[in-house]
Amino acid sequence: MDRDAQRATLKDVAEAAGTSISTASRALSGNPAVAPATRARIQRIATEMGYRPNAQAQALRRSFTNTIGVVVPSLINYYFASMVTAIQREASAAGLSTIIANSQERSDTLADALQVFADQRVDGIICVPHEGCSRRLLGMYRSGMPIVLIDRELEGSTIPTITSDAAASIAEAVGIFSDAGAQPIGYLSGPMETSTGRSRLEAFRRACAELGIGEQRVFLGGYTQERGRCGASELIDAGCRALLAGDSMMTIGVIEECHRRGLVIGHDLEVIGFDTQPLFQLQPRPIMVIDQHVDEMATRAFHALDGMIHGKTPKPLRGFSATTLFTPAAHNPTHPGGEP
Amino acid sequence: MDRDAQRATLKDVAEAAGTSISTASRALSGNPAVAPATRARIQRIATEMGYRPNAQAQALRRSFTNTIGVVVPSLINYYFASMVTAIQREASAAGLSTIIANSQERSDTLADALQVFADQRVDGIICVPHEGCSRRLLGMYRSGMPIVLIDRELEGSTIPTITSDAAASIAEAVGIFSDAGAQPIGYLSGPMETSTGRSRLEAFRRACAELGIGEQRVFLGGYTQERGRCGASELIDAGCRALLAGDSMMTIGVIEECHRRGLVIGHDLEVIGFDTQPLFQLQPRPIMVIDQHVDEMATRAFHALDGMIHGKTPKPLRGFSATTLFTPAAHNPTHPGGEP
Repeated sequence: MDRDAQRATLKDVAEAAGTSISTASRALSGNPAVAPATRARIQRIATEMGYRPNAQAQALRRSFTNTIGVVVPSLINYYFASMVTAIQREASAAGLSTIIANSQERSDTLADALQVFADQRVDGIICVPHEGCSRRLLGMYRSGMPIVLIDRELEGSTIPTITSDAAASIAEAVGIFSDAGAQPIGYLSGPMETSTGRSRLEAFRRACAELGIGEQRVFLGGYTQERGRCGASELIDAGCRALLAGDSMMTIGVIEECHRRGLVIGHDLEVIGFDTQPLFQLQPRPIMVIDQHVDEMATRAFHALDGMIHGKTPKPLRGFSATTLFTPAAHNPTHPGGEP
Repeated sequence: MDRDAQRATLKDVAEAAGTSISTASRALSGNPAVAPATRARIQRIATEMGYRPNAQAQALRRSFTNTIGVVVPSLINYYFASMVTAIQREASAAGLSTIIANSQERSDTLADALQVFADQRVDGIICVPHEGCSRRLLGMYRSGMPIVLIDRELEGSTIPTITSDAAASIAEAVGIFSDAGAQPIGYLSGPMETSTGRSRLEAFRRACAELGIGEQRVFLGGYTQERGRCGASELIDAGCRALLAGDSMMTIGVIEECHRRGLVIGHDLEVIGFDTQPLFQLQPRPIMVIDQHVDEMATRAFHALDGMIHGKTPKPLRGFSATTLFTPAAHNPTHPGGEP
């Protein structure tokens, strides 16, 4: 009889410890999702029983590839391109390679990217999640894959998450419009399937309520330039004198619609957008934006992930990055293109 | 004695066939780099000798992962972000997943990305190459990895390549400046370590020579916004009345410098840039650009790669995509921001 057949299996260890097989497996791979005391107990039992994990499975599970996977919903969105670039810079400084996937805002493409990363045995994943993938993400996380969510939350998940909290900046933006008498205000909202779409819309409504300026106008958009352009068109037609765009891509769409109509931003219409990029600065009058400090978010997400790869649980599990409302310095305030 | 030890090895097959071990290996893996007749002969000999490749190595080599790798030098460059997005769209339609790497214009990072792709056993690679990696790329290609180079050539390489040929558009641009009497013309060149940097500079010089307008001015730049800004500053100080920027990022830099100085493009200074992106269109006067048809290049590169993955050699080995000089339609030609 093969000697290996007499060895204790993972199932034996789990039975002896009174845990599920997956908990035993996680404990033995040092997964921080299992409480330290439980982990220590299961490891002791495994040693006592002479348990030796299947070498191949062990190699598959434990050998570091020194590679992390990053998945974002768009690469032509400067905000996410900057995020990926900043994560790679941090990973590279820590001696890790970065492979990138683009989920194109689709759950099936994201699921596919996660599968590819798992097959490729990356050491960890930083992911902008979609609701449609929450079960898969949670499953991977529970089975020991270090994962950090970035930019968007997954409701009810226990996966460490770094997001920005734009509520204060959104309230400030609404206040600026209100003080300038630029009403009605139109808000271009992101999709309700994203936490950023939901939380920013809620922040907009709360800000309007607190200022007592009533309902204002909301366009339920999507994170694309074209949805931003459509939304701007609809809101301008509805008489809005100020537009607040709920992300980068819709901000571009708003600028496009203003160009189409020959409206000068800051003169004919007030506009506040999201995120910083050369396009928003290199305008006759730079566009005021809510900046999410993408570099800081990327850095925090990477260091949380790096810690998890080395067995540490990030604290806190939810990190919020504050946002800042600002107008990029006009290079030349008397730029002739800026005067109507 | 272990039965496996009596089996014919790859070395035995190579000796019997009178080829090198690597040729025998490539023939047995169906690599199209080995002539069909030779391939058939080596496969016959292997069968006769009862050669069975090491199962694990075989699995590593032959099992398709249905994943391709794409590596570009920057993701915050809209041109490359669009390229990756278009390649992924084609790959996805063909049932393949795409993983992406960002070489950051560094040879060592590119070498690292290629190693990761090889370790991950992608079915093929589309790569914007760097001179510093030509030996590694050629080695991978020769050992059977399907590779297509895109955007830039590698001198003397036999790897299938899709590039754009901008010479005609560059000559047209110089002609437009010359006809308008906008001289001297300043050219912001890409780096000499890239084929695009070299060939576009050559095309600029040839166009000036053919028009008999003499030496004009050249700034040896790099593919970044900051180099473009510095170059524009230097060339404007040198009295240039027209600027031709040799890539997207330097075009942004030129626009930035014009904003800083309060110069209105199309009025105070003539500018022609490279590639299309919202930033160039959403200006008081849209910027005239040399468009590389990145979608077409990406589609051609993917289909060449897909053919190679299935054993076909692309014809021709070098594909050139023509470029087009055009000004994006101004949404509103009377846009007040556009009138100085």
